[in-house]
Amino acid sequence: MAQSISMETGTRSFSHRTLAGDLAAAVGGPATIEGWLTTRRDLGSVTFLVLRDRSGSAQVVVEDERLSETLAGLQVESVLAITGDVVAEPRARGGAELRAREIEVLSPVVEPLPFEINRPVLKPALDIWLDRAPLALRHGSKRAALALTARLVAGYRAALDRRGFVEIFTPKIVGSATEGGANVFPVEYFGRTAYLAQSPQLYKQIMVGVHERVYEVAPVFRAEPHATTRHLNEYVSLDLEVGFVRDHRDVMALVTEVLREMLGGLADTATGELETLGVTLPAIGDIPVVTFREAQEIVLREFGEGARGEPDLSPQHERWLGEWARRTHGSEFLFVEGYPTAKRPFYTMPDPENLTVSSSFDLLFRGLELITGGQREHRYDRLVATMAARGIDPAPFAGYLDAFRFGMPPEGGCAIGLERFVAQLVGAGNVREVTAFPRDINRLAP
Amino acid sequence: MAQSISMETGTRSFSHRTLAGDLAAAVGGPATIEGWLTTRRDLGSVTFLVLRDRSGSAQVVVEDERLSETLAGLQVESVLAITGDVVAEPRARGGAELRAREIEVLSPVVEPLPFEINRPVLKPALDIWLDRAPLALRHGSKRAALALTARLVAGYRAALDRRGFVEIFTPKIVGSATEGGANVFPVEYFGRTAYLAQSPQLYKQIMVGVHERVYEVAPVFRAEPHATTRHLNEYVSLDLEVGFVRDHRDVMALVTEVLREMLGGLADTATGELETLGVTLPAIGDIPVVTFREAQEIVLREFGEGARGEPDLSPQHERWLGEWARRTHGSEFLFVEGYPTAKRPFYTMPDPENLTVSSSFDLLFRGLELITGGQREHRYDRLVATMAARGIDPAPFAGYLDAFRFGMPPEGGCAIGLERFVAQLVGAGNVREVTAFPRDINRLAP
Repeated sequence: MAQSISMETGTRSFSHRTLAGDLAAAVGGPATIEGWLTTRRDLGSVTFLVLRDRSGSAQVVVEDERLSETLAGLQVESVLAITGDVVAEPRARGGAELRAREIEVLSPVVEPLPFEINRPVLKPALDIWLDRAPLALRHGSKRAALALTARLVAGYRAALDRRGFVEIFTPKIVGSATEGGANVFPVEYFGRTAYLAQSPQLYKQIMVGVHERVYEVAPVFRAEPHATTRHLNEYVSLDLEVGFVRDHRDVMALVTEVLREMLGGLADTATGELETLGVTLPAIGDIPVVTFREAQEIVLREFGEGARGEPDLSPQHERWLGEWARRTHGSEFLFVEGYPTAKRPFYTMPDPENLTVSSSFDLLFRGLELITGGQREHRYDRLVATMAARGIDPAPFAGYLDAFRFGMPPEGGCAIGLERFVAQLVGAGNVREVTAFPRDINRLAP
Repeated sequence: MAQSISMETGTRSFSHRTLAGDLAAAVGGPATIEGWLTTRRDLGSVTFLVLRDRSGSAQVVVEDERLSETLAGLQVESVLAITGDVVAEPRARGGAELRAREIEVLSPVVEPLPFEINRPVLKPALDIWLDRAPLALRHGSKRAALALTARLVAGYRAALDRRGFVEIFTPKIVGSATEGGANVFPVEYFGRTAYLAQSPQLYKQIMVGVHERVYEVAPVFRAEPHATTRHLNEYVSLDLEVGFVRDHRDVMALVTEVLREMLGGLADTATGELETLGVTLPAIGDIPVVTFREAQEIVLREFGEGARGEPDLSPQHERWLGEWARRTHGSEFLFVEGYPTAKRPFYTMPDPENLTVSSSFDLLFRGLELITGGQREHRYDRLVATMAARGIDPAPFAGYLDAFRFGMPPEGGCAIGLERFVAQLVGAGNVREVTAFPRDINRLAP
């Protein structure tokens, strides 16, 4: 006596509704639109409404007094289903409007919003609107940034799928704090202490032995107790790892192509979002490359700060280098390669001609580190020796070392911080501006 | 003095190598192939090698004695780069073989493997090979299952992208154990206790207020202290949530279409994997639907077990129902709807005509629960009342409740357990068979 339901789109699923963006195509006929009330203007005998749905907005004209009563007391963001007749109206967005015959209140909002979300600019300060993110994220600029994020990730996957990469799913609960002991979150795991993975680094390397080319898009967790505009304690990492490279330059070339396709894709898939956000996509030609030493010389020569002894670039150095790359190379991107081996993790491949320099790189985007990557040490004996020299206990790495003991090609990879990429792209001063529900030392909700 | 590197594929990236699968196209010319040594047969004056790379395998003939010396002592899984001349050879896989002129050992394996991975069947018991997963996952059946997983997820995203869904990324560290207090992993978060998200449920519902239609592919964490063949403590959940549904049947219709496209896509994107795994794809026509009460009657009538008083179906009941659906409807899938409201989470929409029955469903696939879903309570007042009636403190839900206070359409959604889906699809008796690095009460490594 089992029933069955028809599965074709249109027969059962959501056939009852016209999207706001499709209203013009329905001129001359009846239609029902459903969405959020974004504005209402009462002009005596006539009321103009605007309803927002995922496709855009539509204007509705209400002349029937009985219907006006239905609207009494309703605040914006109420969800309405409005049935009526679609007529051409050159002054309305999209060239059509709906003349209401029936209004059903699907979800009434009866108290005023804590702040206005249907204006061009979201006014409240960051901390205020983040506390009310479920409402604030409906603002046009927030919806656009999040949709742009999704399209950027889709572009990342597409670029790698085209190149024979396999998507992987690696565990986020790990048995030991393998990548540097500090800055991990402990997890209570059935009476033991486990940790949240700081990155899929070791797993993606292992998986090069399986698929040669792998990528993952997943959250990573960093227990760094700072609160800066560019760090989150949980963020989405776009990781990739690839076998049979000759050196880190192969990874740089690959990720340049991937970035170019990601950004190029947005021009097709996120036109509206780019417009809403006022974003001009950066061009990626041949990205200039400087060594870490050259970068320090540029900082000294062009900006007057001596940093030759330092083992890393400071955020200020990176901003200057970004400025320099734009000025002298017309590039918003700059590769810095050859960071000191001592400052990089144990799995980093040293430059075969100078072991104190690593075959690794950072990519700066508008003066901020966007990507870190490099070639990895794939030679089992060297890996074991490096770990010993650094005083790292090999026991928790048994699985990782197995991958190298049993045949691993020369390989490398990199990781892109997703929220940071979007923030730089849209010119947000704080990575939280483009993160739906950021996690930091002060923020665990909503 | 910055250099720049050429970014075109082929000029810099990986241009030096011919893939095993492309060898036939290189007949008559020289080529270098790079990959893992899977077999070697020494026949006196000639040695036959097989090299595996991501595209497949290729046969190599070594006649030069000097080259044979290079191979001395090398075990299978050594990584080699072999340069030579490609000749047509009808007896070789793909119709071509490489006559070696040069062999470079990229990564020598000098100790025997703990078990054989280049045979049709991976022999060791599950626990044995899981301990050596970095090696065992290279077995053809494991590579195929993981690649199939990736293609299945790609199909899921494509089906939803086509329908205007937006991918979301929600936090995995949450401030409170919101979905039922037990079975969550506590995280030490800067001196406070946080938790790992059991699902993105509350966040995806919030995001319906933003994008209407959303999905997420991400890890979820369940601290259930059992060890069964079908549960993991961390798994990948394919979540979706959609606004403007009329009832849970809209969600059922949607997910049926999505499943059909996911499986249909595999026929194109994973032909080789399906063949390797010996998988016949199940057909999805109109999926039969029974109510929870009908399901219990079927269990009693057809299998003789009375379960009318029970508030849920047991695994054995689900297996019987799967058998029944196949026998009487020729379907590998079966929807069960109308579970008792009391057994479903607080956010579940009750059937308007009988509040003790919920507008929710499970989808059984081959007698195992694959998907849980339903319509959600979107009416703010009712939601607050239900929480009060269940004794749930609303304070930690402030953000969630905001989404409903400020206008939420009727909505619903569901979640698919990825590893379980793959396990059922390929006929694996244990979900760990198709999980790269499973997490359970006994297993945190590798």
